[in-house]
Amino acid sequence: MKRITILGSTGSIGTQTLDVVRKNRDKFEVVAISANSSVDLLLEQILEFSPKYVTVYNEESAKKLKDMIPDNINIEVLTSMEGLVKICELDEVDVVLTAVVGMIGLVPTMAAIKAKKTIALANKETLVTAGELVMSEAKKNNVKILPVDSEHSAIFQCLNGERHKDIEKIILTASGGPFRGKKREELINVTKNEALKHPNWDMGRKISIDSSTLMNKGLEVIEAKWLFDVDVEDIDVVVHPQSIIHSMVSFKDSSVISQMGCPDMRLPIVYALTYPDRIETDYERLDLAKVATLTFEKPDMDTFPCLGLAYKALKLGGTYAAALNSANEFLVNKFLNDKIGFYDIPYYIEKTLDCHKNRVNPTLEDILEVDKETRAFLANLLK
Amino acid sequence: MKRITILGSTGSIGTQTLDVVRKNRDKFEVVAISANSSVDLLLEQILEFSPKYVTVYNEESAKKLKDMIPDNINIEVLTSMEGLVKICELDEVDVVLTAVVGMIGLVPTMAAIKAKKTIALANKETLVTAGELVMSEAKKNNVKILPVDSEHSAIFQCLNGERHKDIEKIILTASGGPFRGKKREELINVTKNEALKHPNWDMGRKISIDSSTLMNKGLEVIEAKWLFDVDVEDIDVVVHPQSIIHSMVSFKDSSVISQMGCPDMRLPIVYALTYPDRIETDYERLDLAKVATLTFEKPDMDTFPCLGLAYKALKLGGTYAAALNSANEFLVNKFLNDKIGFYDIPYYIEKTLDCHKNRVNPTLEDILEVDKETRAFLANLLK
Repeated sequence: MKRITILGSTGSIGTQTLDVVRKNRDKFEVVAISANSSVDLLLEQILEFSPKYVTVYNEESAKKLKDMIPDNINIEVLTSMEGLVKICELDEVDVVLTAVVGMIGLVPTMAAIKAKKTIALANKETLVTAGELVMSEAKKNNVKILPVDSEHSAIFQCLNGERHKDIEKIILTASGGPFRGKKREELINVTKNEALKHPNWDMGRKISIDSSTLMNKGLEVIEAKWLFDVDVEDIDVVVHPQSIIHSMVSFKDSSVISQMGCPDMRLPIVYALTYPDRIETDYERLDLAKVATLTFEKPDMDTFPCLGLAYKALKLGGTYAAALNSANEFLVNKFLNDKIGFYDIPYYIEKTLDCHKNRVNPTLEDILEVDKETRAFLANLLK
Repeated sequence: MKRITILGSTGSIGTQTLDVVRKNRDKFEVVAISANSSVDLLLEQILEFSPKYVTVYNEESAKKLKDMIPDNINIEVLTSMEGLVKICELDEVDVVLTAVVGMIGLVPTMAAIKAKKTIALANKETLVTAGELVMSEAKKNNVKILPVDSEHSAIFQCLNGERHKDIEKIILTASGGPFRGKKREELINVTKNEALKHPNWDMGRKISIDSSTLMNKGLEVIEAKWLFDVDVEDIDVVVHPQSIIHSMVSFKDSSVISQMGCPDMRLPIVYALTYPDRIETDYERLDLAKVATLTFEKPDMDTFPCLGLAYKALKLGGTYAAALNSANEFLVNKFLNDKIGFYDIPYYIEKTLDCHKNRVNPTLEDILEVDKETRAFLANLLK
């Protein structure tokens, strides 16, 4: 029986994680869940999964939930960052699945690592902003970081039984997003609704926009660097619109191992929760004769400058990736609120990198400071 | 330093194995080589690789080679089955790479297993005819059987770090051969020269014909059953004309792992010789954006009945697969000598299976007897 804390239980990954638990009650127990403010869904989840703790980040919403919970339910309602950290450190928890979106995941994840919990990591920003710090802390505490996204889970599976020194390249596949094949001039005026229409994956809004700009892939490149300890030059991206090959590793003898499947986020979730075991699932089976054709192309770095900016930030090192990420979070939010256009996202990210004051070997405090600084810089620029 | 005996050093796999050795002199030493009768090439190989033993199966050719070898070369020239067995049992040998074509590989491979040599197996017929016997002997002697063909090497690589009980299916890819997409009526009168034109792989004549009938894939299905200890129902074949995905394994959680690469037989050779290590090679790297498209289709079992016959023989068990294999060897030879037509191959294989007297739990003697019996049966039918 694995005992789980889910950070972000009401989001896309969170609800799919609970679907995995629902079908494997003999294997998993949900000890704690959390969300920002979706109290109605949290209440449903409490009634179904009987966690002992719930953290509602927003204090008002926490109070609201407390009032909604029936008297006969025995649960501790927590709030704010303190509440998130507490459910990551609980003695009775084995695995912390961190599926919150954005930099908010960083502090609780670090707390979970220090408490020696296995981390099932669906929060990209943790490694993007603080990869060096997080991985060295994980190593120090002998903690496993198991990726919960399709691409990194694929790479993780491809590396099963292989040796790190034999890796030649990590090859991330990218669907290309909803605007694949389009040129810059066609995309100048796209709306958030067009950008939100992802062809293959059912994802949250922030990640869907990142997918339309290819920043999603850029963040994954940065994540891969830290998760798999490879040089930035040894991480490639290939566009593969069918999303059947979830990613690949090439080895120094020229052999390439790939992981494939029908697009279903529950597979990387279940793999992270059961690793090193695999359990029987009823997910759709891949039938390549039915799929018939898989295609591949180079990413269009001109039309989608965010990918190149992510490579650039990674190469620059220090807190550049943290600044890139904070700028992206800020700007995607503006785009989702119709405040800026599609190409303003890369434009202002580049401005951010140009003006960024780098910190080498950053601490957690440095990274949190960069986040504030970057947001202030952009708020000022865009006011 | 790995010390190697190569059975069949003058054939396609044998010469490519020597190419691997040529480029990795610090890693491999050739102790013994063998061929049926190609004395000129054997002499060249002796001068280049200085083996201590050479076996020429044909006695006349052995005498001829003896006369050709310069006096200053210190080498023992052996002949016949006795000579093949001897170079498989040498104390100074670590690995026996068996790349002879046909059933002749069976006895020396069994001898090598009993002498506890690691087997790098490029000879399909060994497992096709005597899979149960060979694998149980290998298990008893704690001997590794490392596949040296593209498909089984792929599966072997896909299973790295995985557990047998998690396997759902083995999925062999097939190029489809030179006649893919053709229908039976178009193939009735094909000649051996048309059948020998394989689209992707440079192979020997026997295997090229087997590839054109899909018997090659049928033999691989049987081999996979024994190598990976799976049920016949759990082995699928998918036609993949580009031969980039070399084969796949699907697991019970719905994840599929595949091994890919440019078609180059030296990769499975080098992998078998260096396993569990991987070494740097200068073989062409896979560039999927350049390949652009991978396609997949169901095998056409009506047009290529040999594949279905192989499944049938495997299901029937006992010596049926041995009979199928002997019949196929006999008939392909007839076809290569313009004695029979393309569809006579499956026609007479089916006749062979219909009339076969099965032996359950066959011994080596049973299998050798079935070979003689089957050839006599067909010689009589075709006289």
